[in-house]
Amino acid sequence: MNAHLLTIGDEILIGQIIDTNSAWMSRQLNLIGVSVNGKSSVGDTRADIISGIEHALSLADIVLITGGLGPTKDDITKKTLADMFESGMSFHQETFDRISAYFQKVGRPMPPSMRDQATLPDKAIILVNKVGTAAGMWFERDGKVLVSLPGVPFEMEYLMTNEVLPRLKSKFVSRPIVHRTLLTAGEGESAIARRLEDFEETLPAYIKLAYLPALGQVRLRLTGVWPGEIHPDSEAVLTNEVENYTATLRNTIGDLVFGAEIQTLQGVVGEKLRALGLTLSTAESCTGGYISHLITSEAGASDFFTGSAVTYSNEMKISLLGVNPETINAFGAVSEETVREMAEGAVKNLGSDVAIAVSGIAGPGGGSPEKPVGTVWIAVSNGARTTAQTYIFGRDRGKNIQMAGVYALNMLNKFLGQATDPGSR
Amino acid sequence: MNAHLLTIGDEILIGQIIDTNSAWMSRQLNLIGVSVNGKSSVGDTRADIISGIEHALSLADIVLITGGLGPTKDDITKKTLADMFESGMSFHQETFDRISAYFQKVGRPMPPSMRDQATLPDKAIILVNKVGTAAGMWFERDGKVLVSLPGVPFEMEYLMTNEVLPRLKSKFVSRPIVHRTLLTAGEGESAIARRLEDFEETLPAYIKLAYLPALGQVRLRLTGVWPGEIHPDSEAVLTNEVENYTATLRNTIGDLVFGAEIQTLQGVVGEKLRALGLTLSTAESCTGGYISHLITSEAGASDFFTGSAVTYSNEMKISLLGVNPETINAFGAVSEETVREMAEGAVKNLGSDVAIAVSGIAGPGGGSPEKPVGTVWIAVSNGARTTAQTYIFGRDRGKNIQMAGVYALNMLNKFLGQATDPGSR
Repeated sequence: MNAHLLTIGDEILIGQIIDTNSAWMSRQLNLIGVSVNGKSSVGDTRADIISGIEHALSLADIVLITGGLGPTKDDITKKTLADMFESGMSFHQETFDRISAYFQKVGRPMPPSMRDQATLPDKAIILVNKVGTAAGMWFERDGKVLVSLPGVPFEMEYLMTNEVLPRLKSKFVSRPIVHRTLLTAGEGESAIARRLEDFEETLPAYIKLAYLPALGQVRLRLTGVWPGEIHPDSEAVLTNEVENYTATLRNTIGDLVFGAEIQTLQGVVGEKLRALGLTLSTAESCTGGYISHLITSEAGASDFFTGSAVTYSNEMKISLLGVNPETINAFGAVSEETVREMAEGAVKNLGSDVAIAVSGIAGPGGGSPEKPVGTVWIAVSNGARTTAQTYIFGRDRGKNIQMAGVYALNMLNKFLGQATDPGSR
Repeated sequence: MNAHLLTIGDEILIGQIIDTNSAWMSRQLNLIGVSVNGKSSVGDTRADIISGIEHALSLADIVLITGGLGPTKDDITKKTLADMFESGMSFHQETFDRISAYFQKVGRPMPPSMRDQATLPDKAIILVNKVGTAAGMWFERDGKVLVSLPGVPFEMEYLMTNEVLPRLKSKFVSRPIVHRTLLTAGEGESAIARRLEDFEETLPAYIKLAYLPALGQVRLRLTGVWPGEIHPDSEAVLTNEVENYTATLRNTIGDLVFGAEIQTLQGVVGEKLRALGLTLSTAESCTGGYISHLITSEAGASDFFTGSAVTYSNEMKISLLGVNPETINAFGAVSEETVREMAEGAVKNLGSDVAIAVSGIAGPGGGSPEKPVGTVWIAVSNGARTTAQTYIFGRDRGKNIQMAGVYALNMLNKFLGQATDPGSR
């Protein structure tokens, strides 16, 4: 079963918006065994929308459209779809009431354009959008499915997760597919691939290993697709087999694995801190609050996170964290000595049991021959014990901040692991 | 003159890579008056490449292809292109020498696959890639142009800038297109649309207004396409006209506009602080360092940013920011009284001239009937004067953090504007 993703809207064509929706949609579709065999973008004129849809329908069984549904778009996408499917348009009271309730809840007057937002093609199954005003629409023709979704990422993700994927699954997908994912940090894709050469040899043809790299992290996903005739217990048998290979994979590179499936590094660290009954703070210079932001992105961070001192200036390293001015004078703000004092100062001054400290040169300015842009010192301390490590990342400011964040959380994760179980690493 | 952008490669289709190339290419093409009327992505099989290219050539005068040229791709794109243009392939000594020199320079042995990288279609004009190993290829047929470029962003950008754009400019005389964008914060798309109804009525048919919404922000883009016969001064006349409408637009909703074109809210705030010679700090509770992260994402933030106290616990609000414990007891951590003391405490304790403070309930837990999830208090202070405002965003933790960040920076921006120009708001 294959799908084509179509985005509608001049904002994509003119390059003012980067399309992140379609990558997310591809990954979700892959997980239920639907492969995306093409993507396209067209402008929001009637002619372009029609030719884009016809082309997409000629290439795939499922066409997922995003964009072109906002209240200021003159409903061109919706009207064009209604015409293409020879459907009238009707006012949809239920949708209107939901939109009214939404505006009441946020305490804002409902604009008149919302009446149009609630006028929808009769032949579409309406996909209820509980997080925005534009409804999703599901059409079927000649055994093919065409779905129109709003382009706002969280609205699209809501409708995909709650409406589109479950419907596609029950309509199309029958062959059992099982995925298991392990999460690693601190090593690159090619270095991991070298260590997994022998393991990959042992995999049967119907179980595949995929490398999904991100900055500082690589996800390893094993996907099994049931190869033979389907029995009632096929899925259970396949699940068992994929899980056995996953256990072997974990043993092979256990030093790199920090979690599984949809866990995050900050989530794993948070769980560990909760289990140990420890509190955490961060002392950040070049990461500028990014680590604190990562940690507090997860609900419940207040259980263990006391806070952060983002000490961009040397004065603040001294006043908030108690770093000795002579240490900064002698070794510089980006040094093992300073970052250790930052971590120890955070434990003391930010009232936490453990602390992460980071000091580095994010760039593009501030580098020197001895300390080039990308040089980062990271320390973790519990007051009694402090470990520190230096890295040289790259030249890109944004990536250096993200890499430092990942490596710092990974260092804390190993530090906590050692604290409770000295035998593991 | 119009163009179609085609990406080749499974990594885009499976969602492993977000396509940032095509947005960059669109913007560059727009600047020389070439409008992108479509984009598409196909996998790297011969059949998909052929049908993708034929489809693209049927839609546009110029087809720009990225991807499918790496040394591990079996040169499928290159061979398919050679066949489609009925061209032989020849070893290209000059390209090979350049690749050899590149590997010598970086001190790595040259892999044998590089011989293939230097074998190129005879009928293509070779576009010399001085920053990588895959050459660009320029084909022409029936007055149309097809260009194949590597998918690595900086290689593509190098070849576009130095080879493709200059050639397109000299080959095609195109209809002038002018874009101007204004950036707004603090109001939704539909509310802005209502305020702009009269303005939109005044626009001629060849100047269009587009709404580009993001969380808490809406970009407004005016696009003019020269409607009549083209004269030497057409572009200047059109530019003048679009800029006049942009000025009117800015006057109509001046209270919402914070910048233009590719500026960011944090960048605008940073420029203003630099110009005023003021330093900034942040005191963050529910935003957890996100505002500090936004500010320090921009290079040169150390010019004005002293740092941030992320005070997740009440104890830290008291110890780092000097908030009175009785204030928290009487009014709660999420209150006007507390957030004002946080902002004033940041000015005092974080050594800055002005400070932003945020305290709220990001969710999903922590809400109450009086203070539901999404309630956020924001204050800005310069020590002498403090303003505070409350908002109720939504139920989504991530969105609440982002919205609070945008609204806080917007409040600071207005505060700084008032400080220098008491007549504006």
